[in-house]
Amino acid sequence: MKILDGGLENVPGYRFSAVKAEIKYKDRLDYCLIVPDVLCNASGMFTTNLMAAAPVKLCRERIGNPVSAIVINATNANACTGTEGYENAKILTGDIAARLHSSPESVLMCSTGVIGRQLPAEKMIESHGELVKNLSRENGTVIPRAIMTTDTYPKAVSVSFSTGRGDFTIAGTAKGSGMIAPDMATLLCYIITDAPVSKENLDIIFRSTVETTLNAITIDGDMSTNDTAIILSPLSGNPLSSATDLEIFMRALLHVMSGIAEMLIHDAEGATKLVRIHVINAESDEDAKKAARAISESLLVKTAFFGRDPNWGRIAAAAGYSGAMVKEESLTVMFENITVLSMGKPGDYDRNSLMDVLSKREFSVTVDLGLGSGRAMMITSDISYDYVRINAEYTT
Amino acid sequence: MKILDGGLENVPGYRFSAVKAEIKYKDRLDYCLIVPDVLCNASGMFTTNLMAAAPVKLCRERIGNPVSAIVINATNANACTGTEGYENAKILTGDIAARLHSSPESVLMCSTGVIGRQLPAEKMIESHGELVKNLSRENGTVIPRAIMTTDTYPKAVSVSFSTGRGDFTIAGTAKGSGMIAPDMATLLCYIITDAPVSKENLDIIFRSTVETTLNAITIDGDMSTNDTAIILSPLSGNPLSSATDLEIFMRALLHVMSGIAEMLIHDAEGATKLVRIHVINAESDEDAKKAARAISESLLVKTAFFGRDPNWGRIAAAAGYSGAMVKEESLTVMFENITVLSMGKPGDYDRNSLMDVLSKREFSVTVDLGLGSGRAMMITSDISYDYVRINAEYTT
Repeated sequence: MKILDGGLENVPGYRFSAVKAEIKYKDRLDYCLIVPDVLCNASGMFTTNLMAAAPVKLCRERIGNPVSAIVINATNANACTGTEGYENAKILTGDIAARLHSSPESVLMCSTGVIGRQLPAEKMIESHGELVKNLSRENGTVIPRAIMTTDTYPKAVSVSFSTGRGDFTIAGTAKGSGMIAPDMATLLCYIITDAPVSKENLDIIFRSTVETTLNAITIDGDMSTNDTAIILSPLSGNPLSSATDLEIFMRALLHVMSGIAEMLIHDAEGATKLVRIHVINAESDEDAKKAARAISESLLVKTAFFGRDPNWGRIAAAAGYSGAMVKEESLTVMFENITVLSMGKPGDYDRNSLMDVLSKREFSVTVDLGLGSGRAMMITSDISYDYVRINAEYTT
Repeated sequence: MKILDGGLENVPGYRFSAVKAEIKYKDRLDYCLIVPDVLCNASGMFTTNLMAAAPVKLCRERIGNPVSAIVINATNANACTGTEGYENAKILTGDIAARLHSSPESVLMCSTGVIGRQLPAEKMIESHGELVKNLSRENGTVIPRAIMTTDTYPKAVSVSFSTGRGDFTIAGTAKGSGMIAPDMATLLCYIITDAPVSKENLDIIFRSTVETTLNAITIDGDMSTNDTAIILSPLSGNPLSSATDLEIFMRALLHVMSGIAEMLIHDAEGATKLVRIHVINAESDEDAKKAARAISESLLVKTAFFGRDPNWGRIAAAAGYSGAMVKEESLTVMFENITVLSMGKPGDYDRNSLMDVLSKREFSVTVDLGLGSGRAMMITSDISYDYVRINAEYTT
């Protein structure tokens, strides 16, 4: 596996474009298109929020089909927009399909931005000519920027890898996973590859990789109405099939998606730190996950990280209410390799070394429950003044 | 029912005292004692956190006994302190019992403050002479101050009420329910009355009242290792028994505990607003409670309140991921009497009137799920810069 500079443009067989459709603001890229040269297998993971946005409903219906395009708009989430919002998504994807000479059912759509407002569908259709005309492989570089909302930098990762069937490339991009001003947050993530993988294998591999990457990060615990992650792989009568090749593919995908997950946390709203929470020796993996999630989402733990406070009491308390089995006398907490709590007893540590750890941009916390062999890892950020500012100072 | 000025000192049959035991800081009241003239029935509600502190373990064992005293210390939570911490709680309550000529098993103890440090038991015992000597009814005024940590003002509520068996008084005090700097939060709440109520009735009435008062407020969703609420009522061969009298008692208790709950939210760390979240017409009361809790604990909703942002999208999204059944087309959201979302469609409201509501110190949000008749209410606060400051700037 070789890590490449750049992103989507490294993958042969795809073209891209982005335009300023003035959906909400003037003079910003807000509407973009990803078009594979051949029909693709697609897998998708979508928000489980019952208030799912119109484009999410559309994607859920179409994700089983071969896919000819993904169209994405920023600045308007097309959420809480009822039948009209859903019809707008159908009209827009229908028009794109007509221009690409593909089936409407093969076009996916994603939206992010303000909720409760109808898309300016007519204005958007006016831009479709330019959107299709500008399609090029080189424009892969602009997609990460076109999907941004409060992200402070565009995010893309790509790698190449060799299989028994030749060399392939995989690339991904994503936008902000903090719930985002102005109105509504969203994690949007797109992965493309020229490696052919069957729909069945793609589903299994994508789901398990999302689980340990995008689903292992948490910023504020709020789940958007629009969260979507999609992977495209060319339909081919001869997909990668050997266990070795699929494992190589999976490792490459994991690298790309881990990279994206870490970029999202680094760019979390107001975040100054990235902290890996490892929970080990839980009674079960499920228990470990519960404890890791409770610690990662605890506002008190996250403000303590911001304040460089080695507050293992808050970590222990969050584990204690997580629903996981936790026993005081078997609980150990470490900041990197410094034990602050050992089997329920405060550790005898060097205060300066501990402050060195807490002052780092990235560090890990290990919570050893001492009860079994279950384990889980989550990546979290701190909560700073800027998080409050970003999420409070906007007025709808 | 008559609302009284003042607090615990209004209830006949109890004496109080508080001292500066220098448990962690010099020159602050940090250790106090509540002593009824006769043995009392006691009911208690305790944290469900598996990392429960030593005094919570002790209270759980003793709450079934007739109670002769409650001793409370601030500035040290006696949590994560293992066997030694538990033994210290036993020693301290044992010494108090000896001085009061009561049984050690009849003395309850509560602690709040920094966790993971042993109590300075010897130093605390040295103060027991003064603690017992100073007992007086008038000193009821100092208990609310002695139990404070980051609370900005002492909290007490009292009422008198008439029953078929004569007039009685009920009073309560509590300390901060935000998880609290320096290390650990705690909700401590004490209710005393001169009305005799059987242990069985006291348990039922106290539990149901806590459910709709203390358990209906949320500041940061973190649950302390030390949360404790205790009520005392004199043991008597002739307790209140008629349904009417018990209902009068329950209404008085509800008034006191609602008042305390609201004070706690008003004084939540950094809070500038108190918001009542009413969820109505849910499929069930449980669903309503899930939705109310998710909305009340959503960081995005709480920062929006701080920013006076009528962000019904975040409220709808929180309802959508709460686990409650929610349908976009039947969802209505109101700020006071202004409908911002009506059956899934944005309302046509006057922007200035809405800003007037959002600028208030207190307002209510009604979320009508339009699916059944379940309902629930929670009281929440906003999350401000000061919340982050208070919880971040301390270094252990």
